[in-house]
Amino acid sequence: MEWILASASPRRKELLGALVKQFDIIPAKGEEILCTGLAPDEQVRLLAKNKAQEVASLPQAQGKAVLGADTIVVLDGEILGKPKDERDAERMLLSLSGRTHEVYTGVCIVYPTEDGKKCICEADCTKVTFETLSKAQIKAYVATGSPMDKAGAYGIQDGNLVRSIEGSMSNVIGLPIELCERMIRKAGI
Amino acid sequence: MEWILASASPRRKELLGALVKQFDIIPAKGEEILCTGLAPDEQVRLLAKNKAQEVASLPQAQGKAVLGADTIVVLDGEILGKPKDERDAERMLLSLSGRTHEVYTGVCIVYPTEDGKKCICEADCTKVTFETLSKAQIKAYVATGSPMDKAGAYGIQDGNLVRSIEGSMSNVIGLPIELCERMIRKAGI
Repeated sequence: MEWILASASPRRKELLGALVKQFDIIPAKGEEILCTGLAPDEQVRLLAKNKAQEVASLPQAQGKAVLGADTIVVLDGEILGKPKDERDAERMLLSLSGRTHEVYTGVCIVYPTEDGKKCICEADCTKVTFETLSKAQIKAYVATGSPMDKAGAYGIQDGNLVRSIEGSMSNVIGLPIELCERMIRKAGI
Repeated sequence: MEWILASASPRRKELLGALVKQFDIIPAKGEEILCTGLAPDEQVRLLAKNKAQEVASLPQAQGKAVLGADTIVVLDGEILGKPKDERDAERMLLSLSGRTHEVYTGVCIVYPTEDGKKCICEADCTKVTFETLSKAQIKAYVATGSPMDKAGAYGIQDGNLVRSIEGSMSNVIGLPIELCERMIRKAGI
Protein backbone atom coordinates (compact mmCIF):
# COMPACT_ATOMS: atom_id res chain seq x y z
CA MET A 1 0.00 0.00 0.00
CA GLU A 2 1.26 3.48 -0.86
CA TRP A 3 0.60 6.19 1.73
CA ILE A 4 -0.13 9.90 1.90
CA LEU A 5 -0.01 11.97 5.10
CA ALA A 6 -2.61 14.76 4.87
CA SER A 7 -0.77 17.00 7.36
CA ALA A 8 2.04 19.55 7.23
CA SER A 9 3.08 18.82 10.84
CA PRO A 10 6.75 17.78 11.10
CA ARG A 11 5.86 15.96 14.34
CA ARG A 12 3.23 13.81 12.60
CA LYS A 13 5.67 13.15 9.77
CA GLU A 14 8.20 11.80 12.22
CA LEU A 15 5.66 9.65 14.09
CA LEU A 16 4.14 8.17 10.93
CA GLY A 17 7.66 7.31 9.78
CA ALA A 18 7.83 4.83 12.67
CA LEU A 19 4.90 2.89 11.18
CA VAL A 20 5.09 3.32 7.44
CA LYS A 21 8.37 3.15 5.50
CA GLN A 22 7.59 5.63 2.80
CA PHE A 23 4.85 8.18 2.23
CA ASP A 24 4.10 11.39 0.41
CA ILE A 25 2.88 14.52 2.19
CA ILE A 26 -0.08 16.49 0.85
CA PRO A 27 -1.43 18.82 3.56
CA ALA A 28 -5.22 19.35 3.62
CA LYS A 29 -6.09 22.98 2.93
CA GLY A 30 -9.72 23.04 4.06
CA GLU A 31 -10.79 25.27 6.91
CA GLU A 32 -11.00 23.59 10.32
CA ILE A 33 -14.52 24.30 11.51
CA LEU A 34 -15.36 23.12 15.03
CA CYS A 35 -18.90 21.89 15.59
CA THR A 36 -21.03 23.16 18.46
CA GLY A 37 -22.05 20.63 21.08
CA LEU A 38 -20.15 17.52 19.99
CA ALA A 39 -18.16 15.34 22.38
CA PRO A 40 -14.40 15.95 21.95
CA ASP A 41 -13.66 12.46 20.60
CA GLU A 42 -16.29 12.87 17.88
CA GLN A 43 -15.04 16.40 17.17
CA VAL A 44 -11.53 15.15 16.33
CA ARG A 45 -12.82 12.19 14.32
CA LEU A 46 -14.86 14.65 12.23
CA LEU A 47 -11.92 16.99 11.66
CA ALA A 48 -9.60 14.09 10.83
CA LYS A 49 -12.11 12.73 8.33
CA ASN A 50 -12.52 16.13 6.66
CA LYS A 51 -8.74 16.28 6.14
CA ALA A 52 -8.28 12.69 4.95
CA GLN A 53 -11.25 12.83 2.61
CA GLU A 54 -10.21 16.16 1.09
CA VAL A 55 -6.80 14.79 0.13
CA ALA A 56 -8.17 11.34 -0.86
CA SER A 57 -10.35 13.04 -3.48
CA LEU A 58 -7.30 14.44 -5.34
CA PRO A 59 -6.26 12.67 -8.57
CA GLN A 60 -2.76 11.99 -7.24
CA ALA A 61 -4.22 10.13 -4.22
CA GLN A 62 -6.09 7.52 -6.23
CA GLY A 63 -5.17 3.98 -5.18
CA LYS A 64 -3.34 5.19 -2.07
CA ALA A 65 -4.13 5.22 1.66
CA VAL A 66 -4.55 8.73 3.07
CA LEU A 67 -4.10 9.48 6.78
CA GLY A 68 -5.55 12.64 8.35
CA ALA A 69 -5.29 13.62 12.01
CA ASP A 70 -6.45 16.40 14.28
CA THR A 71 -5.51 17.21 17.86
CA ILE A 72 -7.39 19.31 20.40
CA VAL A 73 -6.75 20.19 24.03
CA VAL A 74 -9.73 20.17 26.40
CA LEU A 75 -9.75 21.91 29.78
CA ASP A 76 -12.93 21.87 31.89
CA GLY A 77 -14.92 20.88 28.79
CA GLU A 78 -13.63 23.86 26.80
CA ILE A 79 -11.62 23.28 23.63
CA LEU A 80 -8.31 25.13 23.38
CA GLY A 81 -7.25 25.48 19.75
CA LYS A 82 -4.09 27.10 18.42
CA PRO A 83 -3.43 30.48 20.06
CA LYS A 84 -4.39 33.59 18.07
CA ASP A 85 -1.43 35.61 19.33
CA GLU A 86 1.15 35.66 22.13
CA ARG A 87 -1.30 37.02 24.71
CA ASP A 88 -3.69 34.21 23.89
CA ALA A 89 -0.84 31.68 24.28
CA GLU A 90 0.03 33.12 27.71
CA ARG A 91 -3.60 32.97 28.77
CA MET A 92 -3.88 29.30 27.72
CA LEU A 93 -0.67 28.25 29.47
CA LEU A 94 -1.74 30.04 32.66
CA SER A 95 -5.06 28.19 32.60
CA LEU A 96 -3.25 24.83 32.15
CA SER A 97 -0.68 25.52 34.91
CA GLY A 98 -0.83 23.07 37.84
CA ARG A 99 -3.89 21.29 36.46
CA THR A 100 -4.94 18.20 34.49
CA HIS A 101 -6.41 18.45 30.98
CA GLU A 102 -7.21 16.02 28.15
CA VAL A 103 -5.62 15.80 24.75
CA TYR A 104 -7.65 14.17 21.98
CA THR A 105 -6.26 13.16 18.61
CA GLY A 106 -8.58 11.83 15.92
CA VAL A 107 -7.16 9.72 13.12
CA CYS A 108 -8.87 8.89 9.85
CA ILE A 109 -7.50 6.59 7.16
CA VAL A 110 -9.25 6.55 3.76
CA TYR A 111 -8.07 3.55 1.75
CA PRO A 112 -8.88 1.84 -1.54
CA THR A 113 -10.53 -1.58 -1.69
CA GLU A 114 -12.05 -3.66 -4.47
CA ASP A 115 -15.47 -2.27 -3.46
CA GLY A 116 -14.31 1.36 -3.67
CA LYS A 117 -12.88 3.61 -0.98
CA LYS A 118 -13.36 2.73 2.66
CA CYS A 119 -12.51 4.61 5.77
CA ILE A 120 -11.67 4.02 9.40
CA CYS A 121 -11.87 6.78 11.95
CA GLU A 122 -10.87 6.60 15.63
CA ALA A 123 -9.68 8.79 18.49
CA ASP A 124 -7.39 8.50 21.49
CA CYS A 125 -7.37 10.51 24.72
CA THR A 126 -4.44 11.22 27.07
CA LYS A 127 -4.66 13.00 30.42
CA VAL A 128 -1.86 15.52 30.94
CA THR A 129 -1.00 17.19 34.25
CA PHE A 130 1.02 20.41 34.05
CA GLU A 131 3.65 21.63 36.45
CA THR A 132 2.79 24.85 38.24
CA LEU A 133 4.33 27.48 35.96
CA SER A 134 5.38 30.98 36.95
CA LYS A 135 4.40 33.94 34.77
CA ALA A 136 8.10 34.41 33.94
CA GLN A 137 8.38 30.79 32.77
CA ILE A 138 5.29 31.20 30.62
CA LYS A 139 6.55 34.43 29.05
CA ALA A 140 9.93 32.86 28.32
CA TYR A 141 8.30 29.81 26.70
CA VAL A 142 5.96 31.93 24.57
CA ALA A 143 8.96 33.99 23.45
CA THR A 144 10.48 30.85 21.87
CA GLY A 145 7.62 30.92 19.33
CA SER A 146 6.96 27.19 19.72
CA PRO A 147 3.46 27.53 21.24
CA MET A 148 2.05 29.47 18.29
CA ASP A 149 1.25 26.53 15.94
CA LYS A 150 0.12 24.11 18.64
CA ALA A 151 -3.30 23.30 20.12
CA GLY A 152 -3.33 24.42 23.76
CA ALA A 153 -0.19 26.53 23.10
CA TYR A 154 2.33 23.87 24.06
CA GLY A 155 4.39 21.00 22.75
CA ILE A 156 4.96 18.19 25.24
CA GLN A 157 8.36 17.64 23.61
CA ASP A 158 9.37 21.22 24.51
CA GLY A 159 10.65 20.48 27.99
CA ASN A 160 9.65 20.99 31.58
CA LEU A 161 5.97 21.89 31.31
CA VAL A 162 4.42 18.55 32.15
CA ARG A 163 4.42 16.76 35.51
CA SER A 164 2.79 13.50 34.38
CA ILE A 165 0.70 11.88 31.67
CA GLU A 166 -1.81 9.06 31.67
CA GLY A 167 -2.08 7.39 28.27
CA SER A 168 -0.25 7.60 24.96
CA MET A 169 2.61 10.12 24.60
CA SER A 170 2.53 10.13 20.78
CA ASN A 171 -1.19 11.00 21.01
CA VAL A 172 -0.24 14.24 22.79
CA ILE A 173 2.42 15.01 20.16
CA GLY A 174 -0.22 14.65 17.44
CA LEU A 175 -0.42 11.07 16.17
CA PRO A 176 -1.20 8.10 18.48
CA ILE A 177 1.05 5.43 16.95
CA GLU A 178 -0.38 2.55 18.99
CA LEU A 179 -3.90 3.42 17.80
CA CYS A 180 -2.71 3.90 14.20
CA GLU A 181 -1.11 0.47 14.30
CA ARG A 182 -4.36 -1.13 15.49
CA MET A 183 -6.35 0.75 12.82
CA ILE A 184 -4.00 -0.39 10.03
CA ARG A 185 -4.30 -3.97 11.26
CA LYS A 186 -8.11 -3.73 11.51
CA ALA A 187 -8.36 -2.32 7.99
CA GLY A 188 -5.99 -5.03 6.73
CA ILE A 189 -3.78 -2.62 4.79
CA MET B 1 -29.33 34.98 6.54
CA GLU B 2 -29.07 33.59 3.00
CA TRP B 3 -29.19 29.81 2.65
CA ILE B 4 -27.75 27.06 0.47
CA LEU B 5 -28.99 23.46 0.47
CA ALA B 6 -26.03 21.13 -0.28
CA SER B 7 -28.26 18.35 -1.63
CA ALA B 8 -29.86 17.47 -4.95
CA SER B 9 -32.76 15.63 -3.26
CA PRO B 10 -36.16 17.05 -4.28
CA ARG B 11 -37.56 15.73 -0.99
CA ARG B 12 -35.04 17.71 1.07
CA LYS B 13 -35.75 20.78 -1.06
CA GLU B 14 -39.43 20.52 -0.27
CA LEU B 15 -38.85 19.99 3.47
CA LEU B 16 -36.35 22.85 3.81
CA GLY B 17 -38.86 25.09 2.04
CA ALA B 18 -41.10 24.72 5.10
CA LEU B 19 -38.41 26.32 7.28
CA VAL B 20 -36.54 28.75 5.08
CA LYS B 21 -38.26 31.04 2.59
CA GLN B 22 -35.59 31.14 -0.06
CA PHE B 23 -32.42 29.20 -0.72
CA ASP B 24 -30.05 28.18 -3.49
CA ILE B 25 -29.21 24.56 -4.22
CA ILE B 26 -25.59 23.47 -4.73
CA PRO B 27 -25.31 19.68 -4.40
CA ALA B 28 -22.12 18.35 -2.78
CA LYS B 29 -20.15 16.23 -5.24
CA GLY B 30 -17.74 14.48 -2.86
CA GLU B 31 -17.79 10.74 -2.53
CA GLU B 32 -19.80 9.36 0.39
CA ILE B 33 -17.35 7.17 2.28
CA LEU B 34 -18.79 5.24 5.22
CA CYS B 35 -16.49 4.77 8.20
CA THR B 36 -15.90 1.37 9.76
CA GLY B 37 -17.08 0.91 13.34
CA LEU B 38 -18.82 4.21 14.06
CA ALA B 39 -22.23 4.44 15.72
CA PRO B 40 -24.92 5.27 13.12
CA ASP B 41 -25.71 8.71 14.57
CA GLU B 42 -22.05 9.73 14.35
CA GLN B 43 -21.81 8.22 10.88
CA VAL B 44 -24.56 10.51 9.54
CA ARG B 45 -23.19 13.57 11.33
CA LEU B 46 -19.83 12.94 9.66
CA LEU B 47 -21.37 12.52 6.21
CA ALA B 48 -23.56 15.60 6.66
CA LYS B 49 -20.54 17.66 7.73
CA ASN B 50 -18.50 16.51 4.73
CA LYS B 51 -21.29 17.71 2.44
CA ALA B 52 -21.94 21.04 4.17
CA GLN B 53 -18.27 21.88 4.50
CA GLU B 54 -17.50 21.02 0.85
CA VAL B 55 -20.15 23.45 -0.37
CA ALA B 56 -19.36 26.08 2.31
CA SER B 57 -15.81 26.29 0.96
CA LEU B 58 -16.99 27.44 -2.49
CA PRO B 59 -16.62 31.17 -3.30
CA GLN B 60 -20.35 31.53 -4.01
CA ALA B 61 -21.18 30.24 -0.50
CA GLN B 62 -19.24 32.92 1.38
CA GLY B 63 -21.42 34.71 3.93
CA LYS B 64 -24.25 32.16 3.59
CA ALA B 65 -25.50 29.32 5.75
CA VAL B 66 -25.03 25.89 4.16
CA LEU B 67 -27.13 22.88 5.16
CA GLY B 68 -25.97 19.34 4.41
CA ALA B 69 -27.82 16.14 5.32
CA ASP B 70 -27.35 12.41 5.03
CA THR B 71 -29.77 9.55 5.67
CA ILE B 72 -29.01 5.89 6.36
CA VAL B 73 -31.21 2.89 7.13
CA VAL B 74 -30.00 0.48 9.81
CA LEU B 75 -31.29 -3.08 10.19
CA ASP B 76 -29.77 -5.34 12.88
CA GLY B 77 -26.81 -2.96 13.14
CA GLU B 78 -26.06 -3.19 9.40
CA ILE B 79 -26.23 -0.04 7.27
CA LEU B 80 -28.34 -0.26 4.12
CA GLY B 81 -27.26 2.36 1.60
CA LYS B 82 -28.76 3.04 -1.80
CA PRO B 83 -29.30 -0.19 -3.79
CA LYS B 84 -26.70 -1.04 -6.45
CA ASP B 85 -29.26 -2.54 -8.82
CA GLU B 86 -32.80 -3.91 -8.88
CA ARG B 87 -31.82 -7.25 -7.34
CA ASP B 88 -30.14 -5.42 -4.48
CA ALA B 89 -33.30 -3.33 -3.98
CA GLU B 90 -35.43 -6.51 -3.83
CA ARG B 91 -33.05 -8.08 -1.33
CA MET B 92 -33.17 -4.98 0.92
CA LEU B 93 -36.97 -4.74 0.82
CA LEU B 94 -37.30 -8.45 1.63
CA SER B 95 -35.01 -8.02 4.65
CA LEU B 96 -37.10 -5.06 5.89
CA SER B 97 -40.46 -6.82 5.38
CA GLY B 98 -42.48 -7.35 8.59
CA ARG B 99 -39.70 -5.96 10.79
CA THR B 100 -38.59 -2.79 12.59
CA HIS B 101 -35.52 -0.82 11.51
CA GLU B 102 -34.00 2.59 12.30
CA VAL B 103 -33.61 5.56 10.02
CA TYR B 104 -30.92 8.11 10.91
CA THR B 105 -30.56 11.51 9.30
CA GLY B 106 -27.60 13.72 10.15
CA VAL B 107 -27.85 17.46 9.60
CA CYS B 108 -24.95 19.90 9.51
CA ILE B 109 -25.26 23.66 9.14
CA VAL B 110 -22.08 25.67 8.46
CA TYR B 111 -22.76 29.38 9.03
CA PRO B 112 -20.82 32.63 9.09
CA THR B 113 -20.24 34.58 12.32
CA GLU B 114 -18.08 37.55 13.24
CA ASP B 115 -15.46 35.07 14.52
CA GLY B 116 -15.39 33.10 11.25
CA LYS B 117 -17.38 30.07 10.17
CA LYS B 118 -19.10 27.96 12.78
CA CYS B 119 -20.95 24.71 12.48
CA ILE B 120 -23.65 22.73 14.21
CA CYS B 121 -24.12 19.05 13.56
CA GLU B 122 -26.88 16.81 14.93
CA ALA B 123 -28.78 13.62 14.12
CA ASP B 124 -32.29 12.24 14.57
CA CYS B 125 -33.48 8.62 14.67
CA THR B 126 -36.89 7.21 13.76
CA LYS B 127 -38.02 3.60 14.21
CA VAL B 128 -39.95 2.27 11.21
CA THR B 129 -41.95 -0.97 11.16
CA PHE B 130 -42.69 -2.43 7.72
CA GLU B 131 -45.78 -4.28 6.63
CA THR B 132 -45.19 -7.89 5.62
CA LEU B 133 -44.64 -7.59 1.88
CA SER B 134 -45.13 -10.34 -0.70
CA LYS B 135 -42.46 -10.97 -3.33
CA ALA B 136 -44.93 -9.78 -5.96
CA GLN B 137 -45.47 -6.49 -4.08
CA ILE B 138 -41.72 -6.00 -3.80
CA LYS B 139 -41.14 -6.69 -7.51
CA ALA B 140 -43.93 -4.30 -8.48
CA TYR B 141 -42.51 -1.57 -6.24
CA VAL B 142 -38.96 -2.00 -7.54
CA ALA B 143 -40.33 -1.82 -11.12
CA THR B 144 -41.54 1.75 -10.41
CA GLY B 145 -37.86 2.80 -10.18
CA SER B 146 -38.48 4.80 -7.00
CA PRO B 147 -36.29 2.62 -4.70
CA MET B 148 -33.12 3.10 -6.75
CA ASP B 149 -32.00 6.50 -5.36
CA LYS B 150 -33.07 5.89 -1.76
CA ALA B 151 -31.25 4.53 1.28
CA GLY B 152 -32.82 1.18 2.24
CA ALA B 153 -34.50 1.04 -1.21
CA TYR B 154 -37.74 2.72 -0.17
CA GLY B 155 -39.47 6.06 0.18
CA ILE B 156 -41.92 6.28 3.07
CA GLN B 157 -44.01 8.64 0.93
CA ASP B 158 -44.40 5.92 -1.72
CA GLY B 159 -47.43 4.22 -0.20
CA ASN B 160 -48.32 1.08 1.66
CA LEU B 161 -44.96 -0.23 2.80
CA VAL B 162 -44.95 0.98 6.39
CA ARG B 163 -47.14 -0.22 9.25
CA SER B 164 -46.03 2.30 11.88
CA ILE B 165 -43.32 4.79 12.82
CA GLU B 166 -41.98 6.02 16.14
CA GLY B 167 -40.39 9.46 15.83
CA SER B 168 -40.14 12.12 13.16
CA MET B 169 -41.67 11.43 9.73
CA SER B 170 -39.62 14.13 7.95
CA ASN B 171 -36.48 12.47 9.36
CA VAL B 172 -37.38 9.31 7.41
CA ILE B 173 -38.00 11.33 4.24
CA GLY B 174 -34.52 12.84 4.56
CA LEU B 175 -34.60 16.06 6.61
CA PRO B 176 -35.89 16.18 10.21
CA ILE B 177 -37.60 19.57 10.21
CA GLU B 178 -38.23 19.67 13.97
CA LEU B 179 -34.51 19.08 14.61
CA CYS B 180 -33.50 21.61 11.93
CA GLU B 181 -35.73 24.19 13.58
CA ARG B 182 -34.07 23.60 16.97
CA MET B 183 -30.60 23.77 15.39
CA ILE B 184 -31.36 27.09 13.65
CA ARG B 185 -32.65 28.50 16.94
CA LYS B 186 -29.59 27.22 18.85
CA ALA B 187 -27.21 28.73 16.30
CA GLY B 188 -29.17 32.00 16.43
CA ILE B 189 -29.38 32.35 12.64
